[in-house]
Amino acid sequence: MERISISEVGPRDGLQSVKATMPTAQKCAWIAALHAAGLREIEVGSFVPAKLLPQLADTEAVVAFARTLSGLLVAALAPNARGTERAIAAGVHKVTMPLSVSRSHSLANVRKPPEAMVEEIRQSCVRRDAASSRPVIEVGLSTAFGCTIEGAVDESAVVRLAEAVLAAGADELSLADTTGMANPTQVKRLTRKVRAVAGERLTGVHLHNTYGLGLANALAAFAEGIRAFDSSQAGLGGCPYAPGATGNVVTEDLVYMFESMGVATGVDLAKLVEARRLLSEALPQEPLYGYLPAAGFPKNFPMAARS
Amino acid sequence: MERISISEVGPRDGLQSVKATMPTAQKCAWIAALHAAGLREIEVGSFVPAKLLPQLADTEAVVAFARTLSGLLVAALAPNARGTERAIAAGVHKVTMPLSVSRSHSLANVRKPPEAMVEEIRQSCVRRDAASSRPVIEVGLSTAFGCTIEGAVDESAVVRLAEAVLAAGADELSLADTTGMANPTQVKRLTRKVRAVAGERLTGVHLHNTYGLGLANALAAFAEGIRAFDSSQAGLGGCPYAPGATGNVVTEDLVYMFESMGVATGVDLAKLVEARRLLSEALPQEPLYGYLPAAGFPKNFPMAARS
Repeated sequence: MERISISEVGPRDGLQSVKATMPTAQKCAWIAALHAAGLREIEVGSFVPAKLLPQLADTEAVVAFARTLSGLLVAALAPNARGTERAIAAGVHKVTMPLSVSRSHSLANVRKPPEAMVEEIRQSCVRRDAASSRPVIEVGLSTAFGCTIEGAVDESAVVRLAEAVLAAGADELSLADTTGMANPTQVKRLTRKVRAVAGERLTGVHLHNTYGLGLANALAAFAEGIRAFDSSQAGLGGCPYAPGATGNVVTEDLVYMFESMGVATGVDLAKLVEARRLLSEALPQEPLYGYLPAAGFPKNFPMAARS
Repeated sequence: MERISISEVGPRDGLQSVKATMPTAQKCAWIAALHAAGLREIEVGSFVPAKLLPQLADTEAVVAFARTLSGLLVAALAPNARGTERAIAAGVHKVTMPLSVSRSHSLANVRKPPEAMVEEIRQSCVRRDAASSRPVIEVGLSTAFGCTIEGAVDESAVVRLAEAVLAAGADELSLADTTGMANPTQVKRLTRKVRAVAGERLTGVHLHNTYGLGLANALAAFAEGIRAFDSSQAGLGGCPYAPGATGNVVTEDLVYMFESMGVATGVDLAKLVEARRLLSEALPQEPLYGYLPAAGFPKNFPMAARS
């Protein structure tokens, strides 16, 4: 039986987009519920200055809690070497570093051009190598499929930066459709181009659902051998219906698609849907997305995979 | 350049699900706007008794108008031979006949088992052959991917009924995911099985978005050589967020996906989005779905296909 792994990014990518700050205890309860549903990789926070993202100022405490959950790979984002240092000190198993391929987006997002971010990644790898825990450093090549400022993003730039961060010591790469502009043909083509230089170190994709193509793009990536997918419970992280929104792929729908196809995700979909309750209690103003939770399970699910 | 054709089913499949009746003049204006956007096949109504579907009681008049639109293939649904007779008299170019593979669904929907519907199709083909206009008769194998009453639907039953309706004289077949229960693996498998007996007479798929898999399923069908897709403007025909709903794939998003992939649809997406205004003016209570219309065009669209 085929398998995929899912990295739940709601507690980081989702909560950083929400104005309200979820109290630490509620974050931990939500993360515990996601873990209880079978998720085995969760991006629980971000090591950025608290004044920039007060919603994630408790990331150290959340990491400490998440580390107590059996078999969970605890990931956190770090935008620079200083953040990586803090992440390592906190005891994360994986540090995710964003590198925007679009220069304009990179400058807007981290006030550095892509080359300077490659240097931060190199410095982060030095710190990783000096750490006894030796966490995985994954680089997410963001805006890889298009940029809201620049429009099309040159695919050769994606390949060049993939090579640069691997040379700088990154363990893993993922292709991130930060703006939701990817389409299945492009996912196929770019996955092949990056795999040609990165091999098995290209592990995953981070897809958004801005144009409703999140699942179709996931399917295209799966067909190219990608087996690791980021997604967010209830699509937290941007409303897909608002102009300029960049909503994440909904974990519930991603799990539903793969399980219905007979691809194991390790996730108990009923428990995953139950975990939405904790999210809506903690953030009652936030819309929760997802088709499966709204439509309910089809009769005798999963049945199609058994035909 | 690859091409697909789209059959817009909003004026039939959409309007039959809406309580309000759209006045004939507004229907015609909407159909004209869809045609002006480049759609070249529209299912404009249904030849069922007016007391069953008062919303479509004006189908004769709508067909007469639609026939004045240059290059438009005018389709209408007929559930039996009597309906086909009326459709032929009205001058349609294509008669779409539904045949539910699930016995329970067939009995609930047309009060006939599938075998009796095959006989209606046979009688319809006799009437077609006697008509000087000789319209195309397309059979939609509904509930082909699952049934809300029975759960899983036996794929060998789909194949058997496909053979039966071709033997009865049907020109074309399509596979209809009436309940939205299809998944991409199943679409691939069933398309292959039916093509093995139907060859090129398996032309299209009719997909719903109940579980958010409409576009992923369309992608899977495209990969198997399917080039004709039904869809509905704004997803009219059932709210995908309501329990038990069976919302159609949104034409705007289907066009967006294929055009972004570099597959020609013949549709001007900006004009198609404009046509939503006529729909919302005529049916102000109906929610209009679609990601592209909500998010707006990405910068420099289409650009990905040009990389």
